[in-house]
Amino acid sequence: MKTLSEHRAFSATQHFFQHESTTIGLPMRFGLYLPPQPKALLVFLAGLTCTEETFAIKAGAQRLAAELGLALLTPDTSPRGANVVGESDAWDFGVGAGFYLDATQAPWAQHWRMESYLLDELIPLVQQQTGLTKTGLFGHSMGGHGALTLALRHPGRFQSLSAFAPIAAPTQCPWGQKAFTGYLGADRSVWAAHDASALVQQQSSAPYPQGILIDQGLADKFLPDQLRPEAFEAACAAVGQPLTLRRHEGYDHGYYFIASFVDDHLRHHAERLI
Amino acid sequence: MKTLSEHRAFSATQHFFQHESTTIGLPMRFGLYLPPQPKALLVFLAGLTCTEETFAIKAGAQRLAAELGLALLTPDTSPRGANVVGESDAWDFGVGAGFYLDATQAPWAQHWRMESYLLDELIPLVQQQTGLTKTGLFGHSMGGHGALTLALRHPGRFQSLSAFAPIAAPTQCPWGQKAFTGYLGADRSVWAAHDASALVQQQSSAPYPQGILIDQGLADKFLPDQLRPEAFEAACAAVGQPLTLRRHEGYDHGYYFIASFVDDHLRHHAERLI
Repeated sequence: MKTLSEHRAFSATQHFFQHESTTIGLPMRFGLYLPPQPKALLVFLAGLTCTEETFAIKAGAQRLAAELGLALLTPDTSPRGANVVGESDAWDFGVGAGFYLDATQAPWAQHWRMESYLLDELIPLVQQQTGLTKTGLFGHSMGGHGALTLALRHPGRFQSLSAFAPIAAPTQCPWGQKAFTGYLGADRSVWAAHDASALVQQQSSAPYPQGILIDQGLADKFLPDQLRPEAFEAACAAVGQPLTLRRHEGYDHGYYFIASFVDDHLRHHAERLI
Repeated sequence: MKTLSEHRAFSATQHFFQHESTTIGLPMRFGLYLPPQPKALLVFLAGLTCTEETFAIKAGAQRLAAELGLALLTPDTSPRGANVVGESDAWDFGVGAGFYLDATQAPWAQHWRMESYLLDELIPLVQQQTGLTKTGLFGHSMGGHGALTLALRHPGRFQSLSAFAPIAAPTQCPWGQKAFTGYLGADRSVWAAHDASALVQQQSSAPYPQGILIDQGLADKFLPDQLRPEAFEAACAAVGQPLTLRRHEGYDHGYYFIASFVDDHLRHHAERLI
């Protein structure tokens, strides 16, 4: 594990590391903000085009994370350096757009294995290195999709869950349909296992009885076509999953929105983890 | 004045504008974070390579600015689009490196007029548009130099002053010597008028009797050769200018450092402006 950089921030340290991922088969980068006496781990999954640095730079989360004792893990959003033909042709597929799943289709299946990378390699590695076991998961947009789906697909692995403007029903939106066609193939019957709204509908009881928090800006240009929080809301209502879905007048899809509400998310997780 | 973008942030709005600057002779961009009922204006001057967006994105200042009622004005760091030969050859001179002075030397003198632009055009424009008269000034690195020198060169224009890791004695460091040679010429006798430490030494009484705040990281790689806060500290002591110079173990030159202490700066200004 190689240190790329480290920065003192709010009397603690923001680290950036690189490690050789056996799951991905390539070097992977991640950020880790580590308060002096961390009490729990909180994993943030970023959106399309972002890197392991984006949330650390833009969200303004370290101040309260230090106060609450939350370590913040920020993985990258896809493999990099695979040199798959076409991997950088689009901003919503390939590099920077891993969608937090294991691809089954060539040429992506070899390296695009973000779900296994996170669940079986990176998160266990950080849990082991920090000694932290209680772990929360949140994310933004594509990373909000990642947070909801990974938490629902792996019961018991995460003890708290929230999202900013998640792609909440990817089988029903252009981003998700493009990504799932490319990574999972044209057979739509396998897509539902990676769709947060479909996953909730399949539950027999509430998987997060302590509640899920979602914030959504109403001036978000992606809201009508890509995000569909109302589908997730309906699914939660149907199975009795407590959901606080807050709709915020005037807020857009970017990090000014995230920064405005990140403290509420940190407190949501701290209350459930610590 | 054209709106480039606007983003809801902490129940207020982060604006980015472009206007035709008569002083610079080119379009100029700036950021303005405007709480609903602002009580004073606080101008932040950014460092080398930065733009009007950098502080707005990375410093995490909007949260407390909204609470305190401070409007935040973030100018760009130089003219852009002048197409002066060599303007982008170096990261510490030309584009992104205006040093907040009026150049006297060809080919820079035509457009590189950041001091007049700020004092005679942009700040009065924003004061007029917002109705805010009380105005504070702060900045980082090259912008810390800008804040200290402009506040000292224009008594009465600013009612509060602070800096992060300022270039505090530019006539004595490589960055300053390069910039002053290029913008002001080889005659060093004119340089002192743009050197914060030299300017303080020339005072007969403390220009900011309510005190100046400076934060400096001790792991800042530019500290030994470029910044020289000790020269400014000595000059303040000599003329009785109250200075709080805080040296912070482990902090570097970047925005993680700024974000860690920006709340203290906002409170410093609010106490003197409101």
